[in-house]
Amino acid sequence: YDPFRQVPLFHFSDGRSLLLTPCLLIHVACVCAGHNASRDVVTLVKSVLFHRRNPLHFHFITDTVANRILSSLFQSWMVPSVQVSFYDADELKSEVSWIPNKHYSGIYGLMKLTLTKALPSDLSKVIVLDTDITFATDIAELWGIFRKFTDKQVIGLVENQSDWYLGNLWKNHKPWPALGRGFNTGVILLYLERLRRISWEQMWRLTAERELMSMLSTSLADQDIFNAFIKQNPVLVHQLPCFWNVQLSDHTRSEQCYTEVSDLKVIHWNSPKKLRVKNKHVEFFRNLYLTFLEYDGNLLRRELFGCPSQASPESVQLQKALEELDEDDQCYDFRRERLTVHRVHLYFLQYDYTPTEDNTDITLVAQLSMDRLQMLEAICKHWEGPISLALYMSDAEAQQFLRYAQASEVLKNRKNVGYHIVYKEGQFYPVNLVRNVALKNANTPYVFLTDVDFLPMYGLYDYLRKSVVQLDMAHTKKALVVPAFETLRYRLSFPKSKAELLSMLDMGTLYTFRYHVWPKGHAPTNYAKWRTATTSYKVEWEPDFEPYVVVRRDCPEYDQRFVGFGWNKVSHIMELDAQEYDLMVLPNAFMIHMPHAPSFDISKFRSSSSYRNCLNTLKDEFHQDLSRKYGSAALKYLTAQRNI
Amino acid sequence: YDPFRQVPLFHFSDGRSLLLTPCLLIHVACVCAGHNASRDVVTLVKSVLFHRRNPLHFHFITDTVANRILSSLFQSWMVPSVQVSFYDADELKSEVSWIPNKHYSGIYGLMKLTLTKALPSDLSKVIVLDTDITFATDIAELWGIFRKFTDKQVIGLVENQSDWYLGNLWKNHKPWPALGRGFNTGVILLYLERLRRISWEQMWRLTAERELMSMLSTSLADQDIFNAFIKQNPVLVHQLPCFWNVQLSDHTRSEQCYTEVSDLKVIHWNSPKKLRVKNKHVEFFRNLYLTFLEYDGNLLRRELFGCPSQASPESVQLQKALEELDEDDQCYDFRRERLTVHRVHLYFLQYDYTPTEDNTDITLVAQLSMDRLQMLEAICKHWEGPISLALYMSDAEAQQFLRYAQASEVLKNRKNVGYHIVYKEGQFYPVNLVRNVALKNANTPYVFLTDVDFLPMYGLYDYLRKSVVQLDMAHTKKALVVPAFETLRYRLSFPKSKAELLSMLDMGTLYTFRYHVWPKGHAPTNYAKWRTATTSYKVEWEPDFEPYVVVRRDCPEYDQRFVGFGWNKVSHIMELDAQEYDLMVLPNAFMIHMPHAPSFDISKFRSSSSYRNCLNTLKDEFHQDLSRKYGSAALKYLTAQRNI
Repeated sequence: YDPFRQVPLFHFSDGRSLLLTPCLLIHVACVCAGHNASRDVVTLVKSVLFHRRNPLHFHFITDTVANRILSSLFQSWMVPSVQVSFYDADELKSEVSWIPNKHYSGIYGLMKLTLTKALPSDLSKVIVLDTDITFATDIAELWGIFRKFTDKQVIGLVENQSDWYLGNLWKNHKPWPALGRGFNTGVILLYLERLRRISWEQMWRLTAERELMSMLSTSLADQDIFNAFIKQNPVLVHQLPCFWNVQLSDHTRSEQCYTEVSDLKVIHWNSPKKLRVKNKHVEFFRNLYLTFLEYDGNLLRRELFGCPSQASPESVQLQKALEELDEDDQCYDFRRERLTVHRVHLYFLQYDYTPTEDNTDITLVAQLSMDRLQMLEAICKHWEGPISLALYMSDAEAQQFLRYAQASEVLKNRKNVGYHIVYKEGQFYPVNLVRNVALKNANTPYVFLTDVDFLPMYGLYDYLRKSVVQLDMAHTKKALVVPAFETLRYRLSFPKSKAELLSMLDMGTLYTFRYHVWPKGHAPTNYAKWRTATTSYKVEWEPDFEPYVVVRRDCPEYDQRFVGFGWNKVSHIMELDAQEYDLMVLPNAFMIHMPHAPSFDISKFRSSSSYRNCLNTLKDEFHQDLSRKYGSAALKYLTAQRNI
Repeated sequence: YDPFRQVPLFHFSDGRSLLLTPCLLIHVACVCAGHNASRDVVTLVKSVLFHRRNPLHFHFITDTVANRILSSLFQSWMVPSVQVSFYDADELKSEVSWIPNKHYSGIYGLMKLTLTKALPSDLSKVIVLDTDITFATDIAELWGIFRKFTDKQVIGLVENQSDWYLGNLWKNHKPWPALGRGFNTGVILLYLERLRRISWEQMWRLTAERELMSMLSTSLADQDIFNAFIKQNPVLVHQLPCFWNVQLSDHTRSEQCYTEVSDLKVIHWNSPKKLRVKNKHVEFFRNLYLTFLEYDGNLLRRELFGCPSQASPESVQLQKALEELDEDDQCYDFRRERLTVHRVHLYFLQYDYTPTEDNTDITLVAQLSMDRLQMLEAICKHWEGPISLALYMSDAEAQQFLRYAQASEVLKNRKNVGYHIVYKEGQFYPVNLVRNVALKNANTPYVFLTDVDFLPMYGLYDYLRKSVVQLDMAHTKKALVVPAFETLRYRLSFPKSKAELLSMLDMGTLYTFRYHVWPKGHAPTNYAKWRTATTSYKVEWEPDFEPYVVVRRDCPEYDQRFVGFGWNKVSHIMELDAQEYDLMVLPNAFMIHMPHAPSFDISKFRSSSSYRNCLNTLKDEFHQDLSRKYGSAALKYLTAQRNI
């Protein structure tokens, strides 16, 4: 009872159809370097995954930055039937660095030439894509065209959709040699096996060397060399139909192609202006692009029903853990959430940080979601040191955040802020998981663990760096407490000094943090003593203490079983105490909580009542874990808890 | 240079291919009644539009509610090459109301039987879909199957994927007669022309009457009757492959179908539990569904390149207006925004309001975006009368709002709140457009025009209703001013009376609204006089006055040229004055502005500087328009403006 064959079927006008072997693995290669390309390539990957019905293997040629971002992204993405390999672009640089190149893509624009060398020697075929490509169809259909290659053909390309290579764009315009309009290298079918056989590596080098004698440099990077090569060896090229690379450059001639086509397959944003390119149909193309830009990447974690996937060890382990959960457990939802692997995109924006030589640097660590974005500028103004922020967002919100950051003068000018997106999934706000992402990606020996609705006093960064040295943090286990205050007023003139803060406290303009609603959280700071303190002083742990502290980066992580409300910081401070950190209050440091309307967090109202019911169970389990890890001394937490 | 034929090509296993005429119009019919079905059907429509490459004509059989919602939605959606027709379900009720039916879909579940009668008599074929269907492929492919019908076949259906009709589900389970497992009617290819020829209408009636003698009622609505009919006339049915209607009911046997298929085409959420159905692959299906649920519907406004569309008069007019804009005008972006047609989904949630008999009812009118959602519960507690809210949101945010509202006891219990979604588009917050949507959809003779961050005093609703009578609003042009105050504190104990408010004002717990930053906005209210006033008093218009007022619903609309910041309410009050409304301050009414953090609105920081530059131009044009409409008396606004 199945009249259709269950494999992608592709039909050509000449009547032949192409029956792809079901579950055939398709290889895709991409050169990707830097923060921006790493962000752009995700949209390409989403568009490919959205339409695909085959297992895929992505091969990324990356610099250190892109490697860090993409490897953690794919690891946390956990898309079934997707393999990823990375190849170090730095090792390939010497292959192409001798070629003078004027194209905006720089040296990475030339690296497609090295793929026979970079990719595994047993890899026979690969589709090579620029990062500014969007797929509107199943990539298997493109892969199928390899079968149409004649025995001689080694490379599949679409004609260039501009007049560049005709050499008549302006007076004395002298492009590299090409067949007619030449070919565009944004989409390439590369028959690696055959290329190796014909000594491609030597051939393109000879071509490049010869042409460079008169041309001096490339204008369009690898594309000039590919075209010069093809001009000499036309039998080697297989010309692809135009719709496999609809080029939206500024003076594109692609309209002829796409207006005839009801069925676009690949769009190439090859203008440096990208989506802002002028083109009377750009709205149409932009819509296709935006579809994937804001698409929830979690939805792409779907099995290929037809093809049994070779599950990764991580996903096998996860599956096992999920099966062990008891659905009738009142904490089921919370235990389930703890097993959720959230997709993480590290360093979403440009980031540039050079470690200080004195090894005393401190990163401000915080987490936030969309509704606290407006705090970022203020925090940047109050803290000039490095910042590690984890942002809990949907794909669409991450794009909104990107637009916000790009439009903000304050944020644009700060390169020492690492923005790490933790993608939303499920009904809870996994606050400690998000905090851990920010913590683990701090690149300094010390971290200041804070919340995003606090503003540090001016000069806190310098003061903390001095304190770190004075209190010999490098060789002792200490947590430096920054006393926390709050204002209930919107328009606060921020105190410039401890003296000013104290007088505002006396006048009732400021309060100690949560004075009215939860004094226990900060009472152990001993604000009375702090008023007159001129040197740091040690305080003892007490139940429910949750100060904001500076610690070494190697401090314990936050316990991820606590999600949403309650016990997320308390449990962390408890573990610091269990590890015998000294809690030292700093006499000249302070931070102030800024008012905000009750946050709208869909997860809160959903979890609150059931969470309260289960919180005690989770607390007990946490205490038991502490006792296991730290021995009988940790029993005091349980006792303290029971006495409350 | 185009080896592929540019039309959708469909290939069958028997080797025949089906070449659809390019641009062939495809007809789709849906029965849709009530608020919830009207929301659900949008996801179906999005999934169809996403994959389609043909012009479509949707035929909706609707009740009054669904007609109002869907007609305004499609009108504002403006999708090229999509036609929509509506047919009144009430007129068809008598055709099926005689059939006792136990299915949860009620009488609307039976209406598919009446389509030969309901739809135009020259309509030859139609695809009939339930609202709980999601498409994962181009609907043209399904339409193409009509060509495979033998000359006798009149109806195409997929087998039912449960054992229901086998009659062995429980002891004494006696289903209606069916061929084997029977057929599911969630997806039907209906060959109307042939059905009319064989007198379908008579035939199904006879079948139903006969079976009802023993069965007494239908269990599965139309499906029972279709199946009984087919059992008697098996030659009339064309069986569709299972993947054209993968049924996710509770005890589905669809797994056999979909696990063999790499390429699912249609999913049918036919369990009353919908997405919460238990099924080991439900995650997979849910992902497909969620793709369209949260998909930005604006992206579907794309031309079909292959098919020249017959543009609607509205879109021709719009195109003309767009072409007349001058791109070099400094206000270009703002004029462009004013021409943007925002998609509007009226009555997004259940709504039920009965007009009062005394004709004095008042609707609270306000607008908001995501970041003010947490105000809704408080407003509902302070105002028991009808409310009309316009929410400016993306598709994904609207779903978040839906989950929020469904989880809130306060909101769930209020049926007299109309929630109207205005979908986001462009970089500005079109505040006056959004306000107008709320205003135009108020269903009472009077409206209270407010902002969402204000809480009305307790009892304001009753007080205003009395004032409306006392001040003879029905026969006079009056705007009743509700004096506005503000608090800068989070935890406010809301004053229970004017006396209490006045003492809080004296103590500095409250201020008159914007006392510190923009006193002009409310100074003409004359707060000094109000303190002691016991009767309403008239005040004169002054420049920049922007009080919150109660007016007749037939008041002028807000001027939509003002977007984002500034002049959005000022211009409205000015026009009330130009129309010679008397501004009457109410002595015993007040409202208080609740504090909130500076709102994060992506549009604000983007528009602010350029907007300020252009605001004066827009103001001038507004003044000129006023003079044109109201004559020389309106010159005073221009003079007032110039004197500032």
